[in-house]
Amino acid sequence: MFVVMTVGASEADVLGVKSHILGEGMTPYDHAGPERIVIAVVGDIGPLKQVLASRLASLPGVEAVTPISRPFKLTSREFHPEDTVIQVLDAVVGDGSLTMMAGPCSIESRDQLFETADVVKAAGATVLRGGAFKPRTSPYAFQGLGVEALRYLAEARERTGLPVITEVMEPSQVDIVAEYADILQIGTRNMQNYSLLRDVGRVARPVMLKRGYGATVEEWLMAAEYIVSAGNPNVILCERGIRTFETYTRNTLDLSVVPLLHHLTHLPVIVDPSHATGKRWLVKPLAIGGVAVGADGVMVEVHPTPDDALSDAEQQLTLEQFQDLMRTLIPVHEHVRGLHDDPVAPATEIVAGTAGLSKH
Amino acid sequence: MFVVMTVGASEADVLGVKSHILGEGMTPYDHAGPERIVIAVVGDIGPLKQVLASRLASLPGVEAVTPISRPFKLTSREFHPEDTVIQVLDAVVGDGSLTMMAGPCSIESRDQLFETADVVKAAGATVLRGGAFKPRTSPYAFQGLGVEALRYLAEARERTGLPVITEVMEPSQVDIVAEYADILQIGTRNMQNYSLLRDVGRVARPVMLKRGYGATVEEWLMAAEYIVSAGNPNVILCERGIRTFETYTRNTLDLSVVPLLHHLTHLPVIVDPSHATGKRWLVKPLAIGGVAVGADGVMVEVHPTPDDALSDAEQQLTLEQFQDLMRTLIPVHEHVRGLHDDPVAPATEIVAGTAGLSKH
Amino acid sequence: MFVVMTVGASEADVLGVKSHILGEGMTPYDHAGPERIVIAVVGDIGPLKQVLASRLASLPGVEAVTPISRPFKLTSREFHPEDTVIQVLDAVVGDGSLTMMAGPCSIESRDQLFETADVVKAAGATVLRGGAFKPRTSPYAFQGLGVEALRYLAEARERTGLPVITEVMEPSQVDIVAEYADILQIGTRNMQNYSLLRDVGRVARPVMLKRGYGATVEEWLMAAEYIVSAGNPNVILCERGIRTFETYTRNTLDLSVVPLLHHLTHLPVIVDPSHATGKRWLVKPLAIGGVAVGADGVMVEVHPTPDDALSDAEQQLTLEQFQDLMRTLIPVHEHVRGLHDDPVAPATEIVAGTAGLSKH
Amino acid sequence: MFVVMTVGASEADVLGVKSHILGEGMTPYDHAGPERIVIAVVGDIGPLKQVLASRLASLPGVEAVTPISRPFKLTSREFHPEDTVIQVLDAVVGDGSLTMMAGPCSIESRDQLFETADVVKAAGATVLRGGAFKPRTSPYAFQGLGVEALRYLAEARERTGLPVITEVMEPSQVDIVAEYADILQIGTRNMQNYSLLRDVGRVARPVMLKRGYGATVEEWLMAAEYIVSAGNPNVILCERGIRTFETYTRNTLDLSVVPLLHHLTHLPVIVDPSHATGKRWLVKPLAIGGVAVGADGVMVEVHPTPDDALSDAEQQLTLEQFQDLMRTLIPVHEHVRGLHDDPVAPATEIVAGTAGLSKH
Repeated sequence: MFVVMTVGASEADVLGVKSHILGEGMTPYDHAGPERIVIAVVGDIGPLKQVLASRLASLPGVEAVTPISRPFKLTSREFHPEDTVIQVLDAVVGDGSLTMMAGPCSIESRDQLFETADVVKAAGATVLRGGAFKPRTSPYAFQGLGVEALRYLAEARERTGLPVITEVMEPSQVDIVAEYADILQIGTRNMQNYSLLRDVGRVARPVMLKRGYGATVEEWLMAAEYIVSAGNPNVILCERGIRTFETYTRNTLDLSVVPLLHHLTHLPVIVDPSHATGKRWLVKPLAIGGVAVGADGVMVEVHPTPDDALSDAEQQLTLEQFQDLMRTLIPVHEHVRGLHDDPVAPATEIVAGTAGLSKH
Repeated sequence: MFVVMTVGASEADVLGVKSHILGEGMTPYDHAGPERIVIAVVGDIGPLKQVLASRLASLPGVEAVTPISRPFKLTSREFHPEDTVIQVLDAVVGDGSLTMMAGPCSIESRDQLFETADVVKAAGATVLRGGAFKPRTSPYAFQGLGVEALRYLAEARERTGLPVITEVMEPSQVDIVAEYADILQIGTRNMQNYSLLRDVGRVARPVMLKRGYGATVEEWLMAAEYIVSAGNPNVILCERGIRTFETYTRNTLDLSVVPLLHHLTHLPVIVDPSHATGKRWLVKPLAIGGVAVGADGVMVEVHPTPDDALSDAEQQLTLEQFQDLMRTLIPVHEHVRGLHDDPVAPATEIVAGTAGLSKH
Repeated sequence: MFVVMTVGASEADVLGVKSHILGEGMTPYDHAGPERIVIAVVGDIGPLKQVLASRLASLPGVEAVTPISRPFKLTSREFHPEDTVIQVLDAVVGDGSLTMMAGPCSIESRDQLFETADVVKAAGATVLRGGAFKPRTSPYAFQGLGVEALRYLAEARERTGLPVITEVMEPSQVDIVAEYADILQIGTRNMQNYSLLRDVGRVARPVMLKRGYGATVEEWLMAAEYIVSAGNPNVILCERGIRTFETYTRNTLDLSVVPLLHHLTHLPVIVDPSHATGKRWLVKPLAIGGVAVGADGVMVEVHPTPDDALSDAEQQLTLEQFQDLMRTLIPVHEHVRGLHDDPVAPATEIVAGTAGLSKH
Repeated sequence: MFVVMTVGASEADVLGVKSHILGEGMTPYDHAGPERIVIAVVGDIGPLKQVLASRLASLPGVEAVTPISRPFKLTSREFHPEDTVIQVLDAVVGDGSLTMMAGPCSIESRDQLFETADVVKAAGATVLRGGAFKPRTSPYAFQGLGVEALRYLAEARERTGLPVITEVMEPSQVDIVAEYADILQIGTRNMQNYSLLRDVGRVARPVMLKRGYGATVEEWLMAAEYIVSAGNPNVILCERGIRTFETYTRNTLDLSVVPLLHHLTHLPVIVDPSHATGKRWLVKPLAIGGVAVGADGVMVEVHPTPDDALSDAEQQLTLEQFQDLMRTLIPVHEHVRGLHDDPVAPATEIVAGTAGLSKH
């Protein structure tokens, strides 16, 4: 349940509510919105829910107590009505601007990375991506350059000023990746690797969480909840296609989730048409589609000579194709910006207290 | 295989090729492009393929003989490189304009239909939709007003000038529906009702073929091939969502198919966000997305009072929501028009003859 | 809702209840079980449900009125607690015996059919299958011998004494197929061809309804409900695999539905491992699996020389493989017969009346 | 590719081949079958494949060199034609006996575990299961008793003599779990947690690898390949249902994979009907089905009082239900044992050398 504080509630009021919650064996998480504070009560309440709600509603500074209908709490729009905006160096994700993450699937050499970085920066990318540790279906396939690639990434950041994002595959890599990278990526196969989720929840770096190719939206938000409840509020969601019976495309890019997520959660949403389609020539139209449905950004794979790439050769754009994409995408983003309605206001029901959650 | 005629091939040359094909027990279908004629050879060729190709290549007026790699032939972009453009009254589908099909899920009364028709026409719809015969999961649910509804549709066409589209569910309804409606719709559950496909292939009305919710793109094009090979070249494809494990949305709208189909086929493509999502508030963002990825049009359900609707209450737009949608969608379409590349040119391989298929 | 009559209710009592239901604009369907009669009330009840339930409960001969929680009614186990048993010539389906349907995918000649029929009969098949009208993905593929094949089927029945089953693809074929065949089959692509369902609901022949490859169990039972509510109670359900992301097998045979359906419905359930797997060598283990989970029978495709078959060459058994299958399957069926518990008794809740539905 | 040695090849011959392979930058893995040794050549061969094959074929003691058509190598039936048989204490998995793994979803107390262990042992279970570290969709749900539960497991082993299996969720837990447990389980969400796979590949404990709910058979075998190629040949595969559009069951148990896997790989296969169906009353019929299609064993969840369970209450059997299951399952296993054909012999093609791979 959520405890909605009155507009003028004092710090003591807030502490009083949190103490009471702790005293009942539950955990309080608070979110200070522009007008008022909301406190989420998390834990196994059981049959005493009504009693606890009544007691909390009677405490000083409490305006209302509302139920949480969904299993995700801290990631829900109800708890945190304003959009989460994440700043990393000069890049801002979630503020209505177009976040453009671009770079090679795998970092294969310093030259390959630098050549790509220079071009994508000039063309308008805001974040540089590149794989150092690669999760590969086959144990015999190229597994990435590892720490060497992390160093190249850091050099590329110095060179271009772009923040860099790279994947972290296991808890023991979290520290080293966090040392070199600005944003940590959790890949689709690790979306429910809960140990890893908790560990990236403890570092001071934003995390981009890719949707599991077989995961529902609810499971995806529960995975984000692991990260946020561990202490890291800066989570970016990335739709990269789900597994269906269709075989022309590698996966099916589920663009419906963009407006759906903007309704359910305050976290920013990125789409990845490269992995979803597995086909270079489908990247541009689906990047346009992603921006048009309201995504906060797009991630694409770019390689100077894709046919020589050590991974995902079929889907990486050439440098020229990326430049062409940006020439198209920036005006599309300008055009659609502001076209989407506010995320549909979640219905709130008051279980105890004197008034409804005022609209932010 | 395809026989590509030279630019100056005579009518006699074409007849000679077609006679030869018929003499081998195969069926020729010809398509006159802006520059030259292509003849598709359809049937069970078997091991004599190379021999037949060589013979055809040596006939007068033949420039080249190329193989068809895909199981769909007449619907393929290789056979018919230019876009199919369909004119119905004042509406034109597939010429780069925005086709907007709107109207109630089920026609419930003359008043309900007329009120909706007037508003959607004024807001910019180009085709009026409305269900007369309804395929319902339950035998006990409202099954549509039938012929009475067809008459209302015809009246609404007189009133507004809009062509009308409605679903035909079985072979015995084809004639009566074709008498009243301008476009015949085949629903998702009937996509592989081959008897019905053949029958709508024999009438002089365009057909909109919805994708089966469990059908691959290839099966969908094979279903269109049934209609075209029966004699009706005016087929419109409509993506309406496929069945996946996700449960927040009713189905998963597969927007990747829009650019994919523009590559594989010359037929126009419409998207239906109402049935795909099952949620009214997701219709607008996904309609924008559909137009942005290059769809030739959008179909939406509109009802004066959706909550009273006898079917699909959850997903129909109000009249005001439709007006708002059109105010957004028309400028988006203007903006994205021309942004998409030409459909990727299909690779052609010559199996016999002197030259490649020149680029149209 | 269901009206459960007392054990000694008179015919007049039953008529009284049915008249009352008709007078309220609803349709009554009655089922005479071994002890008592149950009457299903079908139609759009709306808000007056409680009132109607109370009135019905007060009529003479009524023991209880219970709600129907599920959308399928006449096909539900609640309405008709005993198994439906269907007799066709000497074959009995649904009585605990092993129904074995076997024969070629397509009937290609009289000789091919007779050779197959003789062998499958001798090996223990109880029903002869063979395709006369074939639903093919491609309009250019072999479409079956049609009425000629129906005549061969009838001759094969004379020859072997086996009842014959064949597919009917459209309403206009129902009469001719019913004239020659003993059981009518509805194919997976026509599972929601509602016009066809209603039409086979009007003939005096059992119908085998294959599951749509993209259909849920509920939609499947609703399709059966179309047939039963049109007047034909003799419906056999056939699981033939659903579409998933797995590609090693053509479809995924969903054996969980066998016990699930025995719980939800009184209709017999057959499994078809040939179409589900698309691989000959997987047919035997999955036929064993189907019988082991409690299926009432198995349908397999058998061909004297599968590699020459005009359709589904990959999945048809040779005559020897069928003989081997039967040698294994009959003892497995003997062994598992009686191992399964009674279908879990559906919980019943009484909305009005004096007593619960006694256990049959 | 595989290098097949002659029956009388000397140790020096084998070493010679392995040295040559290493010298080409590839990795050799050898498997000593009952008659002869086969050496798998793993790595990125590229265009020199034919040259290397010819050279290897000319070495002393080499009978033939055959290609590997599939991406999994060490786990393939071609490399290792005999079944892998795994002995853990008194339990033997994969030798044709019935492996029965049973126990609570989560270990909640010493008493709960001991009570369950005693009963399942007496009823015929061969392995005791119990969750110590639980992967939960929600970060707020019960996460298991951890090391305390591991200690109870070890005590239960002392008490009953049954080997114990429990899940390991992250690399840092591998050592501690391997210290207490006899078999390590990798859960469905971690099937592609490659770091974890490699780490369990380095311990001297068998590993049971559950199929990812969204994973293809090929990805599953590639995940097993990670473990085997890291040095641990004792991998057990466990089918636990895949995600489909059906909603009556939690997942769809894919029993086709049992004979399919016996064809593709030498590793033993277990089925888990508890997680697949999510419904207690479907466990028994599907356990019977799993054994009938040839599974090497079954895993089920058992709890003294399932309705009080801290996880998966809906699907755990009572102690009585487990006893009833065993009374049914043991005779079914006796009956079907030996009914299945030998796994279909993989076609082998020789790329270089003097003779074919003789049939083992």
